[in-house]
Amino acid sequence: MDLITMTHGAGGSLTDDLIKKYVLKYLGGSDVEVPLEALDDAAVIRDIVLKSDSHAVKPIFFPGGDIGRLAIAGTVNDIAVMGAEPKALATGFILEEGLEISDLERILQSMMLTCKEAEVSVITGDTKVVEKGALGGCVINTSGIGFRCSALERNLEVVREYRSFTKRWLLDSNLRPGDKILISGSIGEHGVAIMASRYGYDLGGKVESDVAPLNKMIKSLLEVGGIVSMKDLTRGGLANALNEWSEKSGVNILVHEEDIPIRKDVKAACEMLGIDPLQVGNEGKIIIGVVPEMADEVLRELRRHRKGRDAQVIGEVTGKGRMVILDTLVGGRRILSRPVGDPIPRIC
Amino acid sequence: MDLITMTHGAGGSLTDDLIKKYVLKYLGGSDVEVPLEALDDAAVIRDIVLKSDSHAVKPIFFPGGDIGRLAIAGTVNDIAVMGAEPKALATGFILEEGLEISDLERILQSMMLTCKEAEVSVITGDTKVVEKGALGGCVINTSGIGFRCSALERNLEVVREYRSFTKRWLLDSNLRPGDKILISGSIGEHGVAIMASRYGYDLGGKVESDVAPLNKMIKSLLEVGGIVSMKDLTRGGLANALNEWSEKSGVNILVHEEDIPIRKDVKAACEMLGIDPLQVGNEGKIIIGVVPEMADEVLRELRRHRKGRDAQVIGEVTGKGRMVILDTLVGGRRILSRPVGDPIPRIC
Repeated sequence: MDLITMTHGAGGSLTDDLIKKYVLKYLGGSDVEVPLEALDDAAVIRDIVLKSDSHAVKPIFFPGGDIGRLAIAGTVNDIAVMGAEPKALATGFILEEGLEISDLERILQSMMLTCKEAEVSVITGDTKVVEKGALGGCVINTSGIGFRCSALERNLEVVREYRSFTKRWLLDSNLRPGDKILISGSIGEHGVAIMASRYGYDLGGKVESDVAPLNKMIKSLLEVGGIVSMKDLTRGGLANALNEWSEKSGVNILVHEEDIPIRKDVKAACEMLGIDPLQVGNEGKIIIGVVPEMADEVLRELRRHRKGRDAQVIGEVTGKGRMVILDTLVGGRRILSRPVGDPIPRIC
Repeated sequence: MDLITMTHGAGGSLTDDLIKKYVLKYLGGSDVEVPLEALDDAAVIRDIVLKSDSHAVKPIFFPGGDIGRLAIAGTVNDIAVMGAEPKALATGFILEEGLEISDLERILQSMMLTCKEAEVSVITGDTKVVEKGALGGCVINTSGIGFRCSALERNLEVVREYRSFTKRWLLDSNLRPGDKILISGSIGEHGVAIMASRYGYDLGGKVESDVAPLNKMIKSLLEVGGIVSMKDLTRGGLANALNEWSEKSGVNILVHEEDIPIRKDVKAACEMLGIDPLQVGNEGKIIIGVVPEMADEVLRELRRHRKGRDAQVIGEVTGKGRMVILDTLVGGRRILSRPVGDPIPRIC
């Protein structure tokens, strides 16, 4: 008798197996432009980008954010990285009996502020209550829709100046040999902040979650142009996201460890906890695949934004294949494989 | 210190208070066509109907259905009663550690079959896992989008033949004095089936849930025309739905108890359990407000469908006001007030 385990929800290869073996078997097969089986950040039907994300972070309040900010930013970012402009959200609250209404109010206020920051609106919702159990207060599902925007059209025009390109959205399968890989900032803050706060670790410093909506920064990158694919880093961190790209695009990716931005305190915390920062999730960082001719310009635009000021070019697509290779700090290269799951459960 | 209670999630006046006092305070204020503060079955932006519903039914398998069928039908029906054609869904699974994968597979299969019945597709989704607690296996959020359809246009044309009418969707606020109130079938089956199955009551017969997608039946009703408003009966049952109509349309509604279809076994079960069948939820029934000239034709069309064969005209809008009046079986009239919450928690 096979049972669901925490790792099935940790966003790595075990989650992927569960979805491919069971969910797609029954729910795949629609004829929309970007369907479920693309397993991309969101789906597309009639030029509308649709996304649903359930947020089960524990604890619900953590340094640098809370479940409310996460619930808005997570869905906004998934829509934005497709190249769309997120517009309207729907929220489904699962509240636990005994949750303090003042805590719910703090969460709602945080959602409101994050909506303002992202210029999106919650237009519908639903509230259910369940008996006190293991949720830790509440779970919030956020769905949302986004629309094609002129910035995406402009971006695709620039891509087509440099190579033949027929894709209409920034899909995981769009990378080609030669493309440069950029990251918008330092990795691992969100996961480490959750871990420290959940278990009360003293990490000798304050690591705050980077949770943030990135849609406005993304729009300005599209206006520069030349971007072929974008992904936000969540469960399983950079290692997971790069492997998804590699697998879906059928390419080998080389990344240089020395160029991957990581804060000293995050690095120290990961060493202390015995986890690999490359597998730890963020909630306010993206990786970007850019035609090589435009990489410097996109990087410059990224660094103009507060949320992208530590951006770096971290690697490139080296050829056809299915491997992610890490050029290590200590010297030598190794395969950067897809984690079975994020080492920290329930980070989002 | 105020705490969330089970009744806050039971869909009656306490849920309404929570949403008006807290959720709307922070998340209201968007400028879309049908916004959050309409508190209607779904929202509308740029002619797209958007809906999100979390399904926390307990137990996850019950006579006549399961959480998978409920999760598809619930969202499909909420979109359809606005007058739109549901097209694409997004599912967010919250799975409990220890859930048997074979049970997940049964649920997915049921979702697939219900999608086929409703002719909708799941196009994106998300899966999270939480520690074993009080969920009873899983919670499923289903969001979805629907589009304007020619049947809605045809329906509105017929309405305008009989009265001036500028609304573009079938809103809760559309009723006017003279409108007839129809119900598509008998009440209370879903709630009673859940109650019996949860507590192992022997109700001297087998009451099955009526959970079903109604969008195809609804489309054929729109083709007949003359419908001004529609609502599906869920938490809080007929009493809740009628009071929502009355409040939002600013009208008094009179319903005749003798015309409300109710199965003998459901009635007996409610008497045994000491609950009012008018407050017990369904998941496969709608109420329909129709211009009086078209009531008979809409009724005839309803009865042509298996899911509408027990349909009845149960009342009418009597004038401006905010009351629902029940013309009782025993004689005399009484106010049918809005329940504080559905007498059966976690029915959907």
